Amino acid sequence: MGLATDGHNRRAVVLLSGGLDSATTLAMAGAEHFDCYALSFDYGQRHGPELKAAGHVADHCNAREHRVITMDLRQFGGSALTDDALAVPAHGGDGIPITYVPARNTIFLSYALGWAEVLGANDIFIGVNAVDYSGYPDCRPEYIHAYETLANLATKRAVEGETLRLHAPLIDLSKADIIRRGVALGVDYALTVSCYQADAEGRACGNCDSCHFRVEGFRSAGIPDPTRYQ
Amino acid sequence: MGLATDGHNRRAVVLLSGGLDSATTLAMAGAEHFDCYALSFDYGQRHGPELKAAGHVADHCNAREHRVITMDLRQFGGSALTDDALAVPAHGGDGIPITYVPARNTIFLSYALGWAEVLGANDIFIGVNAVDYSGYPDCRPEYIHAYETLANLATKRAVEGETLRLHAPLIDLSKADIIRRGVALGVDYALTVSCYQADAEGRACGNCDSCHFRVEGFRSAGIPDPTRYQ
Repeated sequence: MGLATDGHNRRAVVLLSGGLDSATTLAMAGAEHFDCYALSFDYGQRHGPELKAAGHVADHCNAREHRVITMDLRQFGGSALTDDALAVPAHGGDGIPITYVPARNTIFLSYALGWAEVLGANDIFIGVNAVDYSGYPDCRPEYIHAYETLANLATKRAVEGETLRLHAPLIDLSKADIIRRGVALGVDYALTVSCYQADAEGRACGNCDSCHFRVEGFRSAGIPDPTRYQ
Repeated sequence: MGLATDGHNRRAVVLLSGGLDSATTLAMAGAEHFDCYALSFDYGQRHGPELKAAGHVADHCNAREHRVITMDLRQFGGSALTDDALAVPAHGGDGIPITYVPARNTIFLSYALGWAEVLGANDIFIGVNAVDYSGYPDCRPEYIHAYETLANLATKRAVEGETLRLHAPLIDLSKADIIRRGVALGVDYALTVSCYQADAEGRACGNCDSCHFRVEGFRSAGIPDPTRYQ
């Protein structure tokens, strides 16, 4: 749990996209009594409304602080989420879809690691899921384990004997289980935006991979879907 | 070596700071017949003249392309290189010095990984050195190995069976050996800036850790030091 030996809550950096998974992860970290420092990225993604949602979720879940790092992954391109010339596909199709952003989680976690070191935090939370997901390589358990190994070699804190834990509490949950867990913790999913191409008001397309998994998740959990659709 | 099976040169991403080590690394990658894509970062560092040097070195070493990613590591602070409130210390002292930037190489390599994926490159070069260095944790061989392991789990290319190699050709060389190697490859070290607090013209302080190792390197290699001092 989140209590440090001196009785104070410990700090944790929580990656927060503004989607359903990361909102649930933030609530789970809070339930473990971590003081949560939420970290979001404005990386030139199509789904800008997600970022506004991240701010609302951080407030709603009582994050201690919420920071948004601006970076331009459009410089590299190669993904339908960062390259306007590539269309977001509907759900379906084989292999890793074109919505995969090269090295995205690796970059995000690296910033989280830097912030954790400055904060004196030994815990980082990421809401990746390897069940109802799009097959992105950087959402798999072996990836998470390799990152934790790396993190424990990368920093001054590690050399000084502190151990960093990389938590991926959703990794083996179904989308329905994630939603049930979040509802039990009081997450207001109406605040969250999962759609890859939400409109300016944050309304979802209902059609993309991310919408597909979300719709199925609510249905399978037997919980009314609060998502606003276009 | 750098020849692909189709007889064309292969692409490599090379991290390039504008200092002595990364210039040598770029020359070594070129000597192995890689088409080099040089990557620099404007991260709010004190030593801005280094970035100008990086551009000159990229030209001099015939890099195919040179990109500078802007990011603001000052947001996190925690290092004398990014926080104006912290002074750059003179060489000497115990432990990892305050010039250590939290997670810097981890962040840099993550961008390199993303660019490599978009370029279709399987090789990344980084000029870290674990002999004449400041004891930064993210310059050690075990760190490099852990990063390579991570990289081979992180990307779509990895899932498709491509293997990424993370090259750190300086890692066990002394500074004198690095300089000898570079001179043999025609590197013009007058173009490079290593100093943590060079002035606007790129002239070095002669006093910081980085200057210390550089001065000693040239002396020990018996090669005239072309560095311009303040």
